Amino acid sequence: MPSAPSQRFVLTLACANRPGIVAAVAGHLSQAGLNILDAQQYDDTQTDRFFMRVVFDPVAGEVALDDLKRDFLPLADRFGMVWTLSDPGTPRRVMLMVSRFDHCLADLLYRWRIGELAFEPVGVIANHPAETYGHVGLGDIPFHHLPVTRDTKLEQEAKVWEIIRDSGAELVVLARYMQVLSDGLTAKLAGRCINIHHSFLPGFKGAKPYHQAHARGVKLIGATAHYVTSDLDEGPIIAQDVEPITHRDTPDDLVRKGRDIERRVLARAVRHHLEDRIILNGSKTVVFAD
Amino acid sequence: MPSAPSQRFVLTLACANRPGIVAAVAGHLSQAGLNILDAQQYDDTQTDRFFMRVVFDPVAGEVALDDLKRDFLPLADRFGMVWTLSDPGTPRRVMLMVSRFDHCLADLLYRWRIGELAFEPVGVIANHPAETYGHVGLGDIPFHHLPVTRDTKLEQEAKVWEIIRDSGAELVVLARYMQVLSDGLTAKLAGRCINIHHSFLPGFKGAKPYHQAHARGVKLIGATAHYVTSDLDEGPIIAQDVEPITHRDTPDDLVRKGRDIERRVLARAVRHHLEDRIILNGSKTVVFAD
Amino acid sequence: MPSAPSQRFVLTLACANRPGIVAAVAGHLSQAGLNILDAQQYDDTQTDRFFMRVVFDPVAGEVALDDLKRDFLPLADRFGMVWTLSDPGTPRRVMLMVSRFDHCLADLLYRWRIGELAFEPVGVIANHPAETYGHVGLGDIPFHHLPVTRDTKLEQEAKVWEIIRDSGAELVVLARYMQVLSDGLTAKLAGRCINIHHSFLPGFKGAKPYHQAHARGVKLIGATAHYVTSDLDEGPIIAQDVEPITHRDTPDDLVRKGRDIERRVLARAVRHHLEDRIILNGSKTVVFAD
Amino acid sequence: MPSAPSQRFVLTLACANRPGIVAAVAGHLSQAGLNILDAQQYDDTQTDRFFMRVVFDPVAGEVALDDLKRDFLPLADRFGMVWTLSDPGTPRRVMLMVSRFDHCLADLLYRWRIGELAFEPVGVIANHPAETYGHVGLGDIPFHHLPVTRDTKLEQEAKVWEIIRDSGAELVVLARYMQVLSDGLTAKLAGRCINIHHSFLPGFKGAKPYHQAHARGVKLIGATAHYVTSDLDEGPIIAQDVEPITHRDTPDDLVRKGRDIERRVLARAVRHHLEDRIILNGSKTVVFAD
Repeated sequence: MPSAPSQRFVLTLACANRPGIVAAVAGHLSQAGLNILDAQQYDDTQTDRFFMRVVFDPVAGEVALDDLKRDFLPLADRFGMVWTLSDPGTPRRVMLMVSRFDHCLADLLYRWRIGELAFEPVGVIANHPAETYGHVGLGDIPFHHLPVTRDTKLEQEAKVWEIIRDSGAELVVLARYMQVLSDGLTAKLAGRCINIHHSFLPGFKGAKPYHQAHARGVKLIGATAHYVTSDLDEGPIIAQDVEPITHRDTPDDLVRKGRDIERRVLARAVRHHLEDRIILNGSKTVVFAD
Repeated sequence: MPSAPSQRFVLTLACANRPGIVAAVAGHLSQAGLNILDAQQYDDTQTDRFFMRVVFDPVAGEVALDDLKRDFLPLADRFGMVWTLSDPGTPRRVMLMVSRFDHCLADLLYRWRIGELAFEPVGVIANHPAETYGHVGLGDIPFHHLPVTRDTKLEQEAKVWEIIRDSGAELVVLARYMQVLSDGLTAKLAGRCINIHHSFLPGFKGAKPYHQAHARGVKLIGATAHYVTSDLDEGPIIAQDVEPITHRDTPDDLVRKGRDIERRVLARAVRHHLEDRIILNGSKTVVFAD
Repeated sequence: MPSAPSQRFVLTLACANRPGIVAAVAGHLSQAGLNILDAQQYDDTQTDRFFMRVVFDPVAGEVALDDLKRDFLPLADRFGMVWTLSDPGTPRRVMLMVSRFDHCLADLLYRWRIGELAFEPVGVIANHPAETYGHVGLGDIPFHHLPVTRDTKLEQEAKVWEIIRDSGAELVVLARYMQVLSDGLTAKLAGRCINIHHSFLPGFKGAKPYHQAHARGVKLIGATAHYVTSDLDEGPIIAQDVEPITHRDTPDDLVRKGRDIERRVLARAVRHHLEDRIILNGSKTVVFAD
Repeated sequence: MPSAPSQRFVLTLACANRPGIVAAVAGHLSQAGLNILDAQQYDDTQTDRFFMRVVFDPVAGEVALDDLKRDFLPLADRFGMVWTLSDPGTPRRVMLMVSRFDHCLADLLYRWRIGELAFEPVGVIANHPAETYGHVGLGDIPFHHLPVTRDTKLEQEAKVWEIIRDSGAELVVLARYMQVLSDGLTAKLAGRCINIHHSFLPGFKGAKPYHQAHARGVKLIGATAHYVTSDLDEGPIIAQDVEPITHRDTPDDLVRKGRDIERRVLARAVRHHLEDRIILNGSKTVVFAD
């Protein structure tokens, strides 16, 4: 008799801190026949807020996600938790958005194809035509060419939203999509839209950060993945990295070196999001890294 | 009325993995009026062994460490735990050993003096005379000059052990002490003697690792802090770091660049040990880093 | 009138050190109407050998590479130089070899497609069938499937050599090609065959280095790009890099994290080779990095 | 017969770029019986300005620095060079300034004591009393306690300048000296006053950068060494570095982790300055790193 595929669930929660939360959660899971595989927690002593991520599986038999949620609800209510409970075996639906430079897009799709990143690409939205991305090999992934000009920005964005909505995308990744989203759209995508900015924020916000970095003469350049908010380049930071540069590096060299930083920082942020490792903490993030 | 100084305790444990450990520990602490401030766990799926570190404080009033230990014993026995329970407010007694190069010694003492590393230096054992370390400012720390030659090695080590034993040292740090300890002494110091080796192990074991690195033409050099075992440079690794080098670097440059790596790697390992963040896992370490 | 495309040349040289080399080279170029754009030099004081890389362009008009070589010959002979003079505008012919894991292959081809790495891919040799690399998008690049077994190793390698020879490949890149080359073939490819080994050499030579690293419990993993010699994993190192890992990382996690290190280290080594930035110095390399 | 101590000189120059500079400099040195040991150059194509650093020694006999300067003057004039020529065997006179936190001061003095940094400490100026630095072991280095309040700022700074001037200091290092210097004083110290700012500039200028970094939720913190100008935290950057942090790090943790970054970044900048590796390029630096 073949063994059933092993189940695994991820619980994240945030609530006001008070004694006994861990005991309550661990006790609840134990009594429900669920075994904790991993647990990480964080107590923000400045805001007195508590955050936790728990991975668990059933000790025996199979369980239904909906039952787990229903059973957890009373405890969650008692502590006033903001919480999620998900099955990592069900890949998230992800919409990818891109402008002319496709190194982040190509990298995310490569990681998806070899099974490193578990998600379902429900579409690619680009403001450049399909042939721009010929060598990326989009295959069967729906491609939406939505060019944008100053005059058509509003209509274009309306179409963007329509496509996202109809696709059922749970996550939108701005993989070097170089158009600023309106407040309305960012509000609709709150907490589920990740952007990669090609600087080590808060340095060099806005346009042409590598040229800004060159002009300032910094000795390291970086990239920042963050959730998109209505404040440009001010959203909660998920991941950042840098690399050393020298006076010899031209702006073009920075662009080249930056591509490597951008794609690895964005991939890390997307993976952490897909694995429910990120919990929002006001304008900051708690990232329970592996 | 002044508030009592806040208490805080650290529990570490390792045992065979089975469902319900977290619930049992969290439930025990909760029922004893203790609040979990931080908890980290690790399940080694290869050996099916479970590791945990819990920081907690009393919800109200004060508690005695001995009472906490007595109360935890039954649960520890039930799960067959190897465990420690300690009060980080009581600084550990630390013996420092050094040869000619004192950059690690000077660094550890600096961190101790400004309160970054909480320990009590119970002595410095050196095979070079006191004037070698004149500028380090040993102050009141007992200094033991124990020169060593091929012929006096055994006697010298006997004196080393006597001093360690009499000092009540809980941790011995080989801060670039360049004598190989005998199997007998390493056995006595098992799990409580940290060495800094000036290479990225397992590369370049043994003598003159920077010269070995230069001869091989590597492009990074490193340092490794590890617990000392009878197998030279083979003990459980606690921390490692590296820095880039180039063909232009002479062996002397590597020695210079290496000093910076060594002192920060050793300081990190010592801090993790003092904070009970390290649990031995066979020939490896579990390090619950901050 | 359109301006002529700007010319640029790269000279590399190695010879016994003695006073006046820089003056002789700079004087020669200046008198020939050539302007030094960049120059880097290195004096190995252990071997008393001198290394130099000079980038220059004609002050006016155009010059022929063959004329430049002919004119430089007397000076090169006088100093007993081992030297190269090349036109970076002429892309090198590169043969790529790969086994099952294609992340390095995909990465190199992506960098080639967007113009980051200037070379001409003259073929891909794989011991797995073409469909393995379907998503990489080989396009028009000749693909050679040369499966290999213990019994057919000699014949297979003979075919490998034939393909390399007929392709006119100036550089062979083992982009995770997991077969050991024979001494005969490595001799034929001396100084123009780059391998990526998935460990921080000299640690963890040979097979399954990530599993070796996991077993040893190191806290960093790395990758090493080196020229292939008959000594397995002992060739001159070109580039290395590492990333931190923790006790939580399984061998599979190391493989995943390692992919990112491998592809960036190999790409860096290939770029430095293509730009004539590497000069062999016995069993080591001089890398005039940008 | 004992060999004469080996001489070595360092030439730095900057001028408008034009063909033949390298040939002219190399030819001049060669004809003067001087052998180039190392040479690095940089051509800023944006400003068309040329920078060079040459290390040389006499082929035979001894030479006088003043003679070398006199002989080089005509060539320097011909190309309109801004240049320096110095003997690294003569340690520079360095004034150290510090406020309450002395980790950078202690680190610089340690490196000086073991001979890693070659300079002559001509004094320590502090706005805290001598006992603050008791464990640093200032020894014979003149100590100047110049407390400062809002009302006495002008007079205090006048005394600071007097001490610097009378000491003959060639370099002033603000080793976490937390007072803003006036425009007048920064003008007097132009190009010879290095500050360490405890953030990765241009992020988090001004006061309490670690608290700013914590509030923003960045995932890396850094430090920046730069020449002091009248624009606060805007001077030419010499060296920068960063380290990863997580949501778990409190502002106090950032201060602790930052100390390690600050001291190594400042030490690197000071070393590069003392070795004449830095040439100013407008508001940026050319750093001919080793």
